[in-house]
Amino acid sequence: KAVWGQDLKVNEWIQSIHHLNEEEGGKHWDAVMMGVPISRSSISASGASEFPESFRRAWKGFNTYNLDEEVDLRELSVVDVGDVKMHFTDILLSHQNIKDAFHGLTKEFSGSIPVSIGGDHSITAMLVKGWKETYPNEEIGILQFDTHFDLRDLKDHGPTNGTPIRNLIESGTIKGENVFNIGLHGFFNAPSLVECAKEYGVNYITLKKVRKNGVKETVEQALHTLAGKVDRIYLTCDMDVLDIAYAPGVPASTPGGMRTDELFEAVYTAGLHPKVGAMDIVCLDPMRDGVVQPTVKAGTHVFLSFMTGLAMRKK
Amino acid sequence: KAVWGQDLKVNEWIQSIHHLNEEEGGKHWDAVMMGVPISRSSISASGASEFPESFRRAWKGFNTYNLDEEVDLRELSVVDVGDVKMHFTDILLSHQNIKDAFHGLTKEFSGSIPVSIGGDHSITAMLVKGWKETYPNEEIGILQFDTHFDLRDLKDHGPTNGTPIRNLIESGTIKGENVFNIGLHGFFNAPSLVECAKEYGVNYITLKKVRKNGVKETVEQALHTLAGKVDRIYLTCDMDVLDIAYAPGVPASTPGGMRTDELFEAVYTAGLHPKVGAMDIVCLDPMRDGVVQPTVKAGTHVFLSFMTGLAMRKK
Amino acid sequence: KAVWGQDLKVNEWIQSIHHLNEEEGGKHWDAVMMGVPISRSSISASGASEFPESFRRAWKGFNTYNLDEEVDLRELSVVDVGDVKMHFTDILLSHQNIKDAFHGLTKEFSGSIPVSIGGDHSITAMLVKGWKETYPNEEIGILQFDTHFDLRDLKDHGPTNGTPIRNLIESGTIKGENVFNIGLHGFFNAPSLVECAKEYGVNYITLKKVRKNGVKETVEQALHTLAGKVDRIYLTCDMDVLDIAYAPGVPASTPGGMRTDELFEAVYTAGLHPKVGAMDIVCLDPMRDGVVQPTVKAGTHVFLSFMTGLAMRKK
Amino acid sequence: KAVWGQDLKVNEWIQSIHHLNEEEGGKHWDAVMMGVPISRSSISASGASEFPESFRRAWKGFNTYNLDEEVDLRELSVVDVGDVKMHFTDILLSHQNIKDAFHGLTKEFSGSIPVSIGGDHSITAMLVKGWKETYPNEEIGILQFDTHFDLRDLKDHGPTNGTPIRNLIESGTIKGENVFNIGLHGFFNAPSLVECAKEYGVNYITLKKVRKNGVKETVEQALHTLAGKVDRIYLTCDMDVLDIAYAPGVPASTPGGMRTDELFEAVYTAGLHPKVGAMDIVCLDPMRDGVVQPTVKAGTHVFLSFMTGLAMRKK
Amino acid sequence: KAVWGQDLKVNEWIQSIHHLNEEEGGKHWDAVMMGVPISRSSISASGASEFPESFRRAWKGFNTYNLDEEVDLRELSVVDVGDVKMHFTDILLSHQNIKDAFHGLTKEFSGSIPVSIGGDHSITAMLVKGWKETYPNEEIGILQFDTHFDLRDLKDHGPTNGTPIRNLIESGTIKGENVFNIGLHGFFNAPSLVECAKEYGVNYITLKKVRKNGVKETVEQALHTLAGKVDRIYLTCDMDVLDIAYAPGVPASTPGGMRTDELFEAVYTAGLHPKVGAMDIVCLDPMRDGVVQPTVKAGTHVFLSFMTGLAMRKK
Amino acid sequence: KAVWGQDLKVNEWIQSIHHLNEEEGGKHWDAVMMGVPISRSSISASGASEFPESFRRAWKGFNTYNLDEEVDLRELSVVDVGDVKMHFTDILLSHQNIKDAFHGLTKEFSGSIPVSIGGDHSITAMLVKGWKETYPNEEIGILQFDTHFDLRDLKDHGPTNGTPIRNLIESGTIKGENVFNIGLHGFFNAPSLVECAKEYGVNYITLKKVRKNGVKETVEQALHTLAGKVDRIYLTCDMDVLDIAYAPGVPASTPGGMRTDELFEAVYTAGLHPKVGAMDIVCLDPMRDGVVQPTVKAGTHVFLSFMTGLAMRKK
Ligand SMILES: [Ca+2]
Ligand SMILES: [Ca+2]
Ligand SMILES: [Ca+2]
Ligand SMILES: [Ca+2]
Ligand SMILES: [Ca+2]
Ligand SMILES: [Ca+2]
Ligand SMILES: [Ca+2]
Ligand SMILES: [Ca+2]
Ligand SMILES: [Ca+2]
Ligand SMILES: [Ca+2]
Ligand SMILES: [Ca+2]
Ligand SMILES: [Ca+2]
Repeated sequence: KAVWGQDLKVNEWIQSIHHLNEEEGGKHWDAVMMGVPISRSSISASGASEFPESFRRAWKGFNTYNLDEEVDLRELSVVDVGDVKMHFTDILLSHQNIKDAFHGLTKEFSGSIPVSIGGDHSITAMLVKGWKETYPNEEIGILQFDTHFDLRDLKDHGPTNGTPIRNLIESGTIKGENVFNIGLHGFFNAPSLVECAKEYGVNYITLKKVRKNGVKETVEQALHTLAGKVDRIYLTCDMDVLDIAYAPGVPASTPGGMRTDELFEAVYTAGLHPKVGAMDIVCLDPMRDGVVQPTVKAGTHVFLSFMTGLAMRKK
Repeated sequence: KAVWGQDLKVNEWIQSIHHLNEEEGGKHWDAVMMGVPISRSSISASGASEFPESFRRAWKGFNTYNLDEEVDLRELSVVDVGDVKMHFTDILLSHQNIKDAFHGLTKEFSGSIPVSIGGDHSITAMLVKGWKETYPNEEIGILQFDTHFDLRDLKDHGPTNGTPIRNLIESGTIKGENVFNIGLHGFFNAPSLVECAKEYGVNYITLKKVRKNGVKETVEQALHTLAGKVDRIYLTCDMDVLDIAYAPGVPASTPGGMRTDELFEAVYTAGLHPKVGAMDIVCLDPMRDGVVQPTVKAGTHVFLSFMTGLAMRKK
Repeated sequence: KAVWGQDLKVNEWIQSIHHLNEEEGGKHWDAVMMGVPISRSSISASGASEFPESFRRAWKGFNTYNLDEEVDLRELSVVDVGDVKMHFTDILLSHQNIKDAFHGLTKEFSGSIPVSIGGDHSITAMLVKGWKETYPNEEIGILQFDTHFDLRDLKDHGPTNGTPIRNLIESGTIKGENVFNIGLHGFFNAPSLVECAKEYGVNYITLKKVRKNGVKETVEQALHTLAGKVDRIYLTCDMDVLDIAYAPGVPASTPGGMRTDELFEAVYTAGLHPKVGAMDIVCLDPMRDGVVQPTVKAGTHVFLSFMTGLAMRKK
Repeated sequence: KAVWGQDLKVNEWIQSIHHLNEEEGGKHWDAVMMGVPISRSSISASGASEFPESFRRAWKGFNTYNLDEEVDLRELSVVDVGDVKMHFTDILLSHQNIKDAFHGLTKEFSGSIPVSIGGDHSITAMLVKGWKETYPNEEIGILQFDTHFDLRDLKDHGPTNGTPIRNLIESGTIKGENVFNIGLHGFFNAPSLVECAKEYGVNYITLKKVRKNGVKETVEQALHTLAGKVDRIYLTCDMDVLDIAYAPGVPASTPGGMRTDELFEAVYTAGLHPKVGAMDIVCLDPMRDGVVQPTVKAGTHVFLSFMTGLAMRKK
Repeated sequence: KAVWGQDLKVNEWIQSIHHLNEEEGGKHWDAVMMGVPISRSSISASGASEFPESFRRAWKGFNTYNLDEEVDLRELSVVDVGDVKMHFTDILLSHQNIKDAFHGLTKEFSGSIPVSIGGDHSITAMLVKGWKETYPNEEIGILQFDTHFDLRDLKDHGPTNGTPIRNLIESGTIKGENVFNIGLHGFFNAPSLVECAKEYGVNYITLKKVRKNGVKETVEQALHTLAGKVDRIYLTCDMDVLDIAYAPGVPASTPGGMRTDELFEAVYTAGLHPKVGAMDIVCLDPMRDGVVQPTVKAGTHVFLSFMTGLAMRKK
Repeated sequence: KAVWGQDLKVNEWIQSIHHLNEEEGGKHWDAVMMGVPISRSSISASGASEFPESFRRAWKGFNTYNLDEEVDLRELSVVDVGDVKMHFTDILLSHQNIKDAFHGLTKEFSGSIPVSIGGDHSITAMLVKGWKETYPNEEIGILQFDTHFDLRDLKDHGPTNGTPIRNLIESGTIKGENVFNIGLHGFFNAPSLVECAKEYGVNYITLKKVRKNGVKETVEQALHTLAGKVDRIYLTCDMDVLDIAYAPGVPASTPGGMRTDELFEAVYTAGLHPKVGAMDIVCLDPMRDGVVQPTVKAGTHVFLSFMTGLAMRKK
């Protein structure tokens, strides 16, 4: 019912598949999003399972028009397919569901950019595995915004949010050299993880270095390098890459992290690149957020910044 | 190092087994407590895994002397054996650990009252099963303070915090008729659970009726009935039985619940009864608590009220 | 799609008229609710306009089954007709819309109990006037739960939330003697308002006296007296009648007020009475509420307690 | 400028001595209040120094009319003489200033009831000593509402908020047997203090016993006993006597304490007694209070409840 | 009573007209401020009506000496004339009062810089119209710091806080080309408003561009352009231009906004310009602010930064 | 028990002297820290006494590995000697204890860098005096990060947190010209203090100027100048130098202050300099901190940033 000439809020723009008939749902969509309401696999107590709902509720606070880039997101069509079904006590089954759902999604909506919203970072391993199943003969690269390496050993506690990148490397889904982790800082990674990163060839650029070279430039350079080696790039955005002053609503908020304007720029830049073909936003815990919801709003803006890149890509 | 004539805070009274040598640890203890830092098995997002740590930190705000009953808890000896080991992604393994730990504990400290602190309510099924293993030929009864029945079907999502009582009944660990649930109220139980309670013969007394007959009288009557039928009584205290004004720090806080003075009276009364032989405190989420920690303090007081009953029992 | 034998949450029970076709919407409903998202007419800054949305969001935290009374609310059919259209700068126009909407509602759903949710207390004057238009030849009485008289002079600032009862009396809609205000207390009413109450014959019973005689008994007595004089009784529930410890989320929270269990009892008792034919819940400000939403949950429970009375009435 | 027939807020009723000329200030006042902005003498970190300012700011939320007792406080004249001068690093000098100020006040306003607002409980020793200087040949009794005995040894850390009652007894200002402490409960007093209370003959009545006998009856009985032995009774109200659900804004909030309606009743009853000649309100920390200021409002109501007693006393 | 050589807090520096006699009040003042306690005209629920009071209370936390610019604000004389009288239900009458008050103020204090504090942004239309009445033959330009255009259609809901710039343009008070809006960003303006801005020739510079060219440089350039076309420049500062991490206390806080140091620089730069002759600070909602009041302090600093510019201007 | 190859959290790295035997404690330590739990000497109400405990609890959230500088802090050995004994009502005695403790510490651990954690800023005067006693013939310089001069007159209120620098200068412990205060800004210093700074030759560089020249460059330059004149440099870090958005947990938080990344850089740079031989972190009030503890975490990071400098110094 939205008319081109009329103003549009994000909640009026993104279509829920539950309100569409089969024919409408089956049309081409530029992007397709699904929610992943899980945080049982988080090492520390987390409410990241609640972000899909908070995310959808935040939509009405945003217009589709991006004033900075002078682009209207309604040039893109986006469908929300709802949340992946979770099991309350069988985490591996929930993980399997996530993998299957992302595989199914990327197969059914093969021309669309898939986006996963919510959950702890453990799910990225499942999402990328599901994506790989869809494109078994292609090389996948990862662009990660994170305060952490996520290279913990799976033997310790299974596929937690400390392990997704290692999980993907050790399962052969991706190569370590095809990972770029941007934004790490401070005292939040054990030396064994640095060792692991070096051993697997994982590329990482600390926030200090990012700021020296410029956010946009750093991301562009990482994407350029990746693009020479892989067929598709997966963007994973761990919201704890942000500074605690900007994003209190993550399980492990830290001082010394990114500002939101830097993250928006980084994600937008990623959105512009033609090989970036999927995205997730993880580890955003609305239960720890401030009263006026700075982190939920920031997470929503991250999604829209990425969409802006997509929209610009078409031009 | 605490001398009888000196003032004593709870943190100086309860001994950590890690600071004792083998001989000291092996002596007789009136009560033995362990922490259970799990909340992955909770239906809704929960930080109940954090209560063991908050509980121990709260000790220094309490003296051992109970002014109301004029009894000094140091007449009891209490040892803290630390936390049960949890696995981050294998919930059933964590549950098995809890069962094994409680069985081991009640076997090793056979003359002591075991108390479990923290975790979501799913663990009560494990704790009682572990207890049953220690006393396989005895009949166990349950006194439950809760807003909910906890009689959900295990087939739906496995052993969540919605299921422990049903779990115990269906596994043959206890009989439904040997459960007394006290304090339920309002619109927080599905009719199918009421059906289930009736089918299994679970006894329940709503808060409204409790208040009509008196808290102390109701608990005494329930214990009297149970004592005629069972060998040992297990007390399980779900902190969400409290009103939201008194206990915001639970996953599902509700209006219309118990006041803390009522719960303290109820638990104290249970502590007095010679057949009450074990206790747990569950579903207390410090991450949702108010700034001045009303719920953490209330949970700590519940433990001390129970200890007061124990101390009076000896007289 | 709800089946009788299945569990039901309140959000699955109350039907939105927007999701019904004409035939479904036109059937008989036991109760019909509308939202009134206004707080511009509040004397002090208020977010009472936000309650209709918070109310609907709170539904999923409540089952339809009332354990205390052993009644399932699904015996009643309830439809939500949405929110009254408000104007952002013309308060009198918004007020007119409210009056018209309530008149239209009570005419169209003539056999249903109408309930208005949200808004500041100014709207009660509009709601009762709209109701009076539907039943012009009938005498209306008012049962009010409030910390305040709401008898301020309209000449001062027009129809604010300080004036609805005076508004109704001076406009001839109701007689002062047909008002019972229950629950007032403390230092929150100017002496001129007490004078006014006496002059107009408004009946009032302070909380202290309520507690002396019993909540249920006081409400029953008031209803009994009213029933002898009027044809229909309107129940208006100003959430600031509650104590600040139970209901921080009102524009003017005070110590020394009602407990929630008292208000639930009072409202339930009103719901039982055959002449109580309409209800509103006003002055609940979700923006001032605590993090775990004690006031929003209490307001929702008030509605359900009233519904319980209705359901019992049918038996 | 306040006219009898007009409505009056408390801030319009209480006169600031700084806005009066000498003649006006020198007239008879029924009560005279001073602020004591100190909390450096508190054992634990406290913002009780901030209550005088919060108290005055809260006035405009209260009318002078008490609906429960149907009395208008403007029948009393009350003057606010401002705050006692404090030194930032010399606590004993600040204490001396408090003593001198209260002595000066009670001498200058000899027919008035003096009230001290704010500060930690250490100041009660100074206030009563100052009062004693004014009436050196009279016996003073103390009615204390508190969760604690305040009988710690001065040798340990000097005149902290843990010591005022012992300070007064050991200095010979009052006799232990002329102290009634009402409302203590739980695990918040070391056994050595109970010993001390018994040794000095301090009377204490736990909250549990208060509730058994009735709040009003308990206070009346204590006053009756005191009145038979002393010339003047000093009422000291430590706000931590309240339950944490009602009064989070105290340095050591506890579960199991008084409700506000009980404290208001207790203080009102004290205000009625002709021998109660002075009052203080201490240990209210606005920095720990909830957003909607339940404790500041409760403290203000305590003052007004006491004033109500005074007003009724005149009738 | 403030002596030049002595330290001075802002509350000792700004004089309240209520404490001055006629002669004192009638002297020349460099600046004159009034409060506008209204937020009924805000589209979303807002407590912007409370800022005048919070603003005055915040003064005592600031010295008059600006260390960065080494200037003492006491070189300026500033008088506070109090708050404009508001009506509680007639918004247009309140608006009329604001217009009349600003006209009266600028006429009576013709040599002073008028500053309006508080209220939602709807009032800027009234303030500029009142100013225009004082200088009917002069051209007025507007420098706006805002996240929004404020160009909504008045026909929809009348003069809300979404409409002031359009209101001023369509009423002929100012020309669209004489508006510079600085600091807009993100997804918070509907495309129809961008259209409107273009149609009316409103100049706007997004935050991204501001940062590219420098805050100071951008503001200077805008003022330079305006100064070539208008006689007087009105500075309107919507506090929601700030990032949510710095200013949670606004009705619609957003990520991606200005930092406070940028806004202080911008406002200081405006204060320096000889044609900037009036200022307002709007849409600051203290009820949504953080506990330590970052937004109230920021709003107060904005005022003082502007005053610093004025003081430097004289040199 | 920490092995070099294993991951290490800060709580596993810093050794508590209470858990070491005499021989272990007596070995060489690179740094030695003590807690100073005092805030009675603060001008405004403060909970800075609580930081030592919060600091130690925060350790487990940090690894020893600094990813930015690629250095592992375990190259340093650090011992925690616990808290200085405080008196509750004799502030000068507490101050004497602090001085004696720091003197004793720096004598006993003569090759170690001493670090003081917690307390209000008054203690810096005591700490530096204690240090001076250890090195009576050496010249001491001070590098201060602060929003304030701390040059108030001791005659007014004794040695408060407004006076430490003046205290040190007037007592002849240091020379004014050997003080560099970096980071001051805004309206938070009285002109008399600026006068005093000039008179004593105290060097100060406002944040605005710091940003113009670069944080690192400014600190290096200040250290370079100091190093030419003094034997040892004391680094004092008042956490209120940070912006209110980053550090709400200080007694007087202000807008316009430093970002945490700037402070970390500044402190790290100081840590690198061979003459910087002692450090304190003051005026951090955990009771005012946000729920997710941004200020406590920032204070902990400041300590670790300094340690990083020390570690790099050895290379
Ligand atoms: Ca991660
Ligand atoms: Ca991470
Ligand atoms: Ca349960
Ligand atoms: Ca429960
Ligand atoms: Ca009302
Ligand atoms: Ca009311
Ligand atoms: Ca006390
Ligand atoms: Ca006390
Ligand atoms: Ca605006
Ligand atoms: Ca705006
Ligand atoms: Ca300082
Ligand atoms: Ca400072």
